[in-house]
Amino acid sequence: MTHDARRLALTMGDAAGIGPEIIVRAIASGAAGPCVVVGSVDVMRRATAQSGLLLPVALLDAPDDAVPPDCVPVWQPPALPAGLGDLVMGQVQATAGAAAACCIEAAARLALAGQVAGIVTAPIHKEALAASGVHHPGHTEMLQALAGAPAVRMMLANGELRVVLVTIHVALRRAIELLDFDAVLQTLRIVQGAAVRWGQPRPRIAVAGLNPHAGEGGLFGDEELRFIAPAIAAAVAEGIDARGPFAPDTVFMRARHAPGHPGEFDIVVAMTHDHGLIPVKYLGVEHGVNVTLGLPFVRTSPDHGTAFDIAGRRPADARSFEAAIRMARQLAG
Amino acid sequence: MTHDARRLALTMGDAAGIGPEIIVRAIASGAAGPCVVVGSVDVMRRATAQSGLLLPVALLDAPDDAVPPDCVPVWQPPALPAGLGDLVMGQVQATAGAAAACCIEAAARLALAGQVAGIVTAPIHKEALAASGVHHPGHTEMLQALAGAPAVRMMLANGELRVVLVTIHVALRRAIELLDFDAVLQTLRIVQGAAVRWGQPRPRIAVAGLNPHAGEGGLFGDEELRFIAPAIAAAVAEGIDARGPFAPDTVFMRARHAPGHPGEFDIVVAMTHDHGLIPVKYLGVEHGVNVTLGLPFVRTSPDHGTAFDIAGRRPADARSFEAAIRMARQLAG
Repeated sequence: MTHDARRLALTMGDAAGIGPEIIVRAIASGAAGPCVVVGSVDVMRRATAQSGLLLPVALLDAPDDAVPPDCVPVWQPPALPAGLGDLVMGQVQATAGAAAACCIEAAARLALAGQVAGIVTAPIHKEALAASGVHHPGHTEMLQALAGAPAVRMMLANGELRVVLVTIHVALRRAIELLDFDAVLQTLRIVQGAAVRWGQPRPRIAVAGLNPHAGEGGLFGDEELRFIAPAIAAAVAEGIDARGPFAPDTVFMRARHAPGHPGEFDIVVAMTHDHGLIPVKYLGVEHGVNVTLGLPFVRTSPDHGTAFDIAGRRPADARSFEAAIRMARQLAG
Repeated sequence: MTHDARRLALTMGDAAGIGPEIIVRAIASGAAGPCVVVGSVDVMRRATAQSGLLLPVALLDAPDDAVPPDCVPVWQPPALPAGLGDLVMGQVQATAGAAAACCIEAAARLALAGQVAGIVTAPIHKEALAASGVHHPGHTEMLQALAGAPAVRMMLANGELRVVLVTIHVALRRAIELLDFDAVLQTLRIVQGAAVRWGQPRPRIAVAGLNPHAGEGGLFGDEELRFIAPAIAAAVAEGIDARGPFAPDTVFMRARHAPGHPGEFDIVVAMTHDHGLIPVKYLGVEHGVNVTLGLPFVRTSPDHGTAFDIAGRRPADARSFEAAIRMARQLAG
């Protein structure tokens, strides 16, 4: 046993999607660094062959076994379903969903036990997950349940911008109803806690308003006055460097870190999915990384899905997955 | 009389703000081209002196009088209030509001009569406008009333992106209530009509949805299914190249025109103020231009306000105003 504290667990994702391929590409390019793939040896062998990469796949007996050089190190969770080598690429299959869930659960247990420095998850397909009988809609909810975390938040990050969302996959009308003092303050506490964990004790957190011009003093909506500003004040009273609420249309520009443009803030909290994701994605999705905040371990993922339309047919782009690995290493310290 | 069909009317804006100064700078830099300033000679002389630019101010008897070279050509509307040279910089003053309104009205009449190719408006202060007894909240509403236009829309544009907003300065909650089939279809018709006017007979118009992932088939909100998609279909039936609804978080990235990244669309229609303005402003506000669509003439303005905090104290940045002039010339053809 040669425990490597810097080893990341890479979950293979849906075996019918591009997940196994982008894992192989990230390892082949050297971008992955010390890691263990939590997945199926058959699936990873097929992905290696399909990618045209002459990289051996090594089966580890235990997740912290020594890894031979220049190979794809795979640890198979004991509960992994059989027959995964026969899956059809690009199709929703319950077995693929069950295998993906099994790998996520096994990786979470490794992270909770401190056996890996963090988890990077390859994409899963939510219909396949549901078909396998898993009632969680996605990674985030599964990991939250496995870790027993009271609340989590999604952070999207690239080289320029880190954005944390208060609400995510709900109708905009419903998002407005879900927003309140507690949702904003809880987000600020989660951001602060995560930043401390990754070694940034006092990040400058900007809070974007909900309404045009952040409500312009109540003229265009009162959410800023009623609970966003009070939640910021409560966070400040707890020692959090939270500022705002700022006009949504200029706060991301102000926070942007680019050559010759030092950002004014380290993280922006956005009230809605699209206020936050429009600026993160504007310059391209290749480098976007999804980070789950509020878990007791580091978890990142690429900002794209299983790409069933190209899986096994055309080469997949591993850049976002590689960026997710880099981000996980950075956050794991 | 030497009527120059390419002459633009530049309204001086609030005389206590940076409007007169950025006009002088745009003329001095050569960026303005053929133009006539609709404003006060006293105000423009003071702005020239404060800017340290040795440029004579020439008073024209009529807006289409010949303009001597290398000067700031000013035409004073007959109804212009007196005493404007004594205004205090950086303060809300009813006289400044009245003068700004007078210049806007005079410029609109010139444009309606075909005496100028278009209008570029320097910033006004809405409190000063209100203090002067004008009941319109801003330029757009004043110009719409003067032109008798049934509906107008705001377009924000820079070198990469052109975005038209269905709703603007209202609470986000209220914006969702205001959206319907007619609001979306009317926007598409206004965009199409404006594009034809500026010589683009069939622009590729992308419509951004309202909800995350454009509602994901009704899972996250039904506005896309209920009226956005039907309004797009109705526009297509009228011969408009409207497409969507697309996920708000990626449509602006897809529409972006940049070196090596030809945009997929010419114009994006956004349902809300901040969905549209976050991407336009993300890379900086210096080059953003506001264009009013739906008027029978071209009208542009810079994407900033009167900047009372620096007016007359520190040099103002004329780049957005110069971009507004360039855009007006481009749209006037």
